[in-house]
Amino acid sequence: MGTRPSKTLEVVPNPSPDRDYEIAIEAPEFTCLCPRTGQPDFATIRVNYIPDQLIVELKSFKLYLWSYRDEGAFHEAVVNQVLNDLVGAVRPRWMKVVGDFNVRGGLHTTVTATYGKPPER
Amino acid sequence: MGTRPSKTLEVVPNPSPDRDYEIAIEAPEFTCLCPRTGQPDFATIRVNYIPDQLIVELKSFKLYLWSYRDEGAFHEAVVNQVLNDLVGAVRPRWMKVVGDFNVRGGLHTTVTATYGKPPER
Amino acid sequence: MGTRPSKTLEVVPNPSPDRDYEIAIEAPEFTCLCPRTGQPDFATIRVNYIPDQLIVELKSFKLYLWSYRDEGAFHEAVVNQVLNDLVGAVRPRWMKVVGDFNVRGGLHTTVTATYGKPPER
Amino acid sequence: MGTRPSKTLEVVPNPSPDRDYEIAIEAPEFTCLCPRTGQPDFATIRVNYIPDQLIVELKSFKLYLWSYRDEGAFHEAVVNQVLNDLVGAVRPRWMKVVGDFNVRGGLHTTVTATYGKPPER
Amino acid sequence: MGTRPSKTLEVVPNPSPDRDYEIAIEAPEFTCLCPRTGQPDFATIRVNYIPDQLIVELKSFKLYLWSYRDEGAFHEAVVNQVLNDLVGAVRPRWMKVVGDFNVRGGLHTTVTATYGKPPER
Amino acid sequence: MGTRPSKTLEVVPNPSPDRDYEIAIEAPEFTCLCPRTGQPDFATIRVNYIPDQLIVELKSFKLYLWSYRDEGAFHEAVVNQVLNDLVGAVRPRWMKVVGDFNVRGGLHTTVTATYGKPPER
Amino acid sequence: MGTRPSKTLEVVPNPSPDRDYEIAIEAPEFTCLCPRTGQPDFATIRVNYIPDQLIVELKSFKLYLWSYRDEGAFHEAVVNQVLNDLVGAVRPRWMKVVGDFNVRGGLHTTVTATYGKPPER
Amino acid sequence: MGTRPSKTLEVVPNPSPDRDYEIAIEAPEFTCLCPRTGQPDFATIRVNYIPDQLIVELKSFKLYLWSYRDEGAFHEAVVNQVLNDLVGAVRPRWMKVVGDFNVRGGLHTTVTATYGKPPER
Amino acid sequence: MGTRPSKTLEVVPNPSPDRDYEIAIEAPEFTCLCPRTGQPDFATIRVNYIPDQLIVELKSFKLYLWSYRDEGAFHEAVVNQVLNDLVGAVRPRWMKVVGDFNVRGGLHTTVTATYGKPPER
Amino acid sequence: MGTRPSKTLEVVPNPSPDRDYEIAIEAPEFTCLCPRTGQPDFATIRVNYIPDQLIVELKSFKLYLWSYRDEGAFHEAVVNQVLNDLVGAVRPRWMKVVGDFNVRGGLHTTVTATYGKPPER
Repeated sequence: MGTRPSKTLEVVPNPSPDRDYEIAIEAPEFTCLCPRTGQPDFATIRVNYIPDQLIVELKSFKLYLWSYRDEGAFHEAVVNQVLNDLVGAVRPRWMKVVGDFNVRGGLHTTVTATYGKPPER
Repeated sequence: MGTRPSKTLEVVPNPSPDRDYEIAIEAPEFTCLCPRTGQPDFATIRVNYIPDQLIVELKSFKLYLWSYRDEGAFHEAVVNQVLNDLVGAVRPRWMKVVGDFNVRGGLHTTVTATYGKPPER
Repeated sequence: MGTRPSKTLEVVPNPSPDRDYEIAIEAPEFTCLCPRTGQPDFATIRVNYIPDQLIVELKSFKLYLWSYRDEGAFHEAVVNQVLNDLVGAVRPRWMKVVGDFNVRGGLHTTVTATYGKPPER
Repeated sequence: MGTRPSKTLEVVPNPSPDRDYEIAIEAPEFTCLCPRTGQPDFATIRVNYIPDQLIVELKSFKLYLWSYRDEGAFHEAVVNQVLNDLVGAVRPRWMKVVGDFNVRGGLHTTVTATYGKPPER
Repeated sequence: MGTRPSKTLEVVPNPSPDRDYEIAIEAPEFTCLCPRTGQPDFATIRVNYIPDQLIVELKSFKLYLWSYRDEGAFHEAVVNQVLNDLVGAVRPRWMKVVGDFNVRGGLHTTVTATYGKPPER
Repeated sequence: MGTRPSKTLEVVPNPSPDRDYEIAIEAPEFTCLCPRTGQPDFATIRVNYIPDQLIVELKSFKLYLWSYRDEGAFHEAVVNQVLNDLVGAVRPRWMKVVGDFNVRGGLHTTVTATYGKPPER
Repeated sequence: MGTRPSKTLEVVPNPSPDRDYEIAIEAPEFTCLCPRTGQPDFATIRVNYIPDQLIVELKSFKLYLWSYRDEGAFHEAVVNQVLNDLVGAVRPRWMKVVGDFNVRGGLHTTVTATYGKPPER
Repeated sequence: MGTRPSKTLEVVPNPSPDRDYEIAIEAPEFTCLCPRTGQPDFATIRVNYIPDQLIVELKSFKLYLWSYRDEGAFHEAVVNQVLNDLVGAVRPRWMKVVGDFNVRGGLHTTVTATYGKPPER
Repeated sequence: MGTRPSKTLEVVPNPSPDRDYEIAIEAPEFTCLCPRTGQPDFATIRVNYIPDQLIVELKSFKLYLWSYRDEGAFHEAVVNQVLNDLVGAVRPRWMKVVGDFNVRGGLHTTVTATYGKPPER
Repeated sequence: MGTRPSKTLEVVPNPSPDRDYEIAIEAPEFTCLCPRTGQPDFATIRVNYIPDQLIVELKSFKLYLWSYRDEGAFHEAVVNQVLNDLVGAVRPRWMKVVGDFNVRGGLHTTVTATYGKPPER
């Protein structure tokens, strides 16, 4: 069987580096393990960014998210880690990562982290 | 860390065995692996049943669904297997299991299997 | 302070006992305690019935549901108990009680119990 | 000022009495008074019917509903009264009246009364 | 300018006359005039039918609905007339026409008329 | 580049041929050409069936739908053709195909065709 | 039985104190008592904050909210008290607390209180 | 019977006058009379405000809205009058009143009036 | 029959000219003709404005919109004309007109034109 | 058969060039091919712009979008190309193009590119 989970984020050249434009990726199939109980957690991960010279290759991002499947990770740490890894790989002008986690104990938690100066709208 | 995935479904006595009533359980956090590609599949599993002498204990059902996390399984086989396992454990008067799988290749697939005679409504 | 929780269901005469008609009551503010963990459970209770000579007085039904606030009760038992108490009080021609419980452990559970022959539609 | 509330329901001839067809009217602006507290109650009234020789004139039905504005009336009584008055005026082959009342004391109540044999569908 | 409103419904041969299948057409842009006040009325017209040897040509149905734009017509009469004209043109095995009219005087009215024996489902 | 559009529907053995269960597939990315104007048409195709000894292989069904991309086809003919081809390939106990076509000329059209006796519910 | 309601909010170190990021928690299962009538009130509590050195531990926050179950408290006071207690415990850079209370007497009330300077977006 | 409509708005001390926080009240059960036709009008009234030393007592606000039931009042005048009366009673730092009126003559009208400087967000 | 379409917009004095407040009118029943094909177009027209000394009388606005029923008009021209006519009649401090046109050729078009300086919010 | 896909965008004079107003076009029927796999991609394209002396003729824009049907194109390149072509043709004061692509590999991607200074609102 072909592809496997991977922490490696591949990048490709931005086809329009002269323009500030925004790419949004929604990934509703994120799952990891709770570091306290070992039980599965589920979330939707949303990424918005303004690319500079590089954009993230989508298939490698899918495999990157898959790589969390067997890892224990706190909500706040997951979101900051995804942001750090993406920023390290694509060096965007601006990026936001949101983790929208399923209800646990009657509480619904969302974590939002940002890199760089937000775009003017 | 406490609980672990388990194929064992626990049951408890039905508190009202003299009455035909219906229990519905929706589990939106089901995930297994695609047997062809090895990649994760995601689904919502819905169970409806009319208990006889036993009802399924909910925490054991959660652990049962968790046990599919690392297994390769076709959509049609998952749903029929969950139905077979639940019927074997709780011996219901009637039961329906639905697997509502996330889009793959632009196709959204749902599988519905039933045991026993449906309730009159 | 005036009213208090009460297990007593009051009834008033049905203003149209010669006609089969249906009354539906939705109570989204039901809460009791989990008998295993002692923690609060939350549900919406829905009642549908065809009255015979009596109808349930709504304020007393509100106080009746309030009386579960400090009680430990399993999902299946709550719904069957509410049905039994209402049937005992209003002696309907037909009645259905649904308990729609908030997500616990990623599972959403609904219990539906019925008394008498369902209405033809 | 022109029109005033009125208990008189006007009728006009059914343009297609040879065919069983259904007319549905939804009136979301019904208000009356609570007979216990004197405070306003609000509801949506829905009427479905299969006419025989007559259909209800819509403006007169609007004025008819308006005539409840200053009356104290229980939920169950309102719905049965509207059904009786409409049946008396238009002599339908079948009719259903639903009163969907706004939340009071955390309870949402709906009352449904029917005249005649329901249509086959 | 090309097309014009027309009362003529064109038909084409049914490509699968050996099978009972259903065609549904929703037309949200119907408008006529109120025969009492002369003011515009608006509705969505929905047609469902099982064709026999003929099906209605869609462009001619669009022009047919357009032909009501300057006509005064009661709600109940519009729906029965559309049904009669369609039945006359396509001779279906079964047909249903629904007129869902915009709110007038706080009342929302829907009229449903049917020809032939409804399909078994 | 790998896969290409194909009229060949592949099948695989039904894993539970001893049980009547239902498979539902929704394909929102169907497009063909209008045989009159040559312009693109868009639709969602929905298939429901009860398999007998075979089930349709999903990837081949995706390629099958893709094969309509450059073909001119009337709405009613598309749906009956998809039904005929699927029935020929998987020989189901029952099957329904729905084509839900995008608005053209202000009209929204849906076509529904069925093979075999519908399931009891 | 294990956990019990508690006014003690536990905190854990912020895993990314060098970055301004936002945590959002929605708690739809809040209930307290009306201080005038003694009857239960229900609300959804929403918290948004930018942590500094500490983040609130979610289980302790669940128990904290549970501790209001038997207390009489006005809407406006509840929201300001939750904000004060959370600010005292986690010392955030910015925090907002919303209480969205169920309808009483036909009125739906929401209270929103904020601490610190709102984040630039 | 107890309470009656009243133009008197009662106030209570603001429990947190040292903080700018917002209170929102939605009242979907407002009705008055059209000053031209005498027929009933219906609206949802929404109030948002930042209190200073006083907050409005909710039951008196309910009775205040009830007092419009038999009055003829134009849409624009109702909203400005409610704003003037609330500002006179609670002397807020900021307040907004919205009247969202039901459709009349195919037109849906909303009126929004504000007092004081809007809050920074 | 009474009223007729008319290009004359009537105005009445603003009851609160000393305050900047906003009036919003939604008219979902706008129809005109396509100037190229002569076929009917349909749109929802939305008007928002801050009045100065005058407000538009709603019935005359309804008749004004009706006057487009038999006119050929491009989308962009309709919206700018309605804005010009309303500004000419009521001399507002600020006004916005939106035309939200039904799908034609698979395209959904909206046109938004504004007069004066937008309100601070 | 008449019209064919075309890369030529036609323009017509802006009927109100003295005013900054906004035109929005939503095209939910965009399809092209994936340049890696050759398989069809689907998207909704949304265009917002403030015209200067020219506006885009809608039918030519429909044919322009159709011209992508047989082309391989990356998501990011499609959106930047549509923006470049439209800007070249209509020379707007401001323009935004959004491509909202269907889910592939569990990821939903949206690309947003802008030309000129955004409008003040």
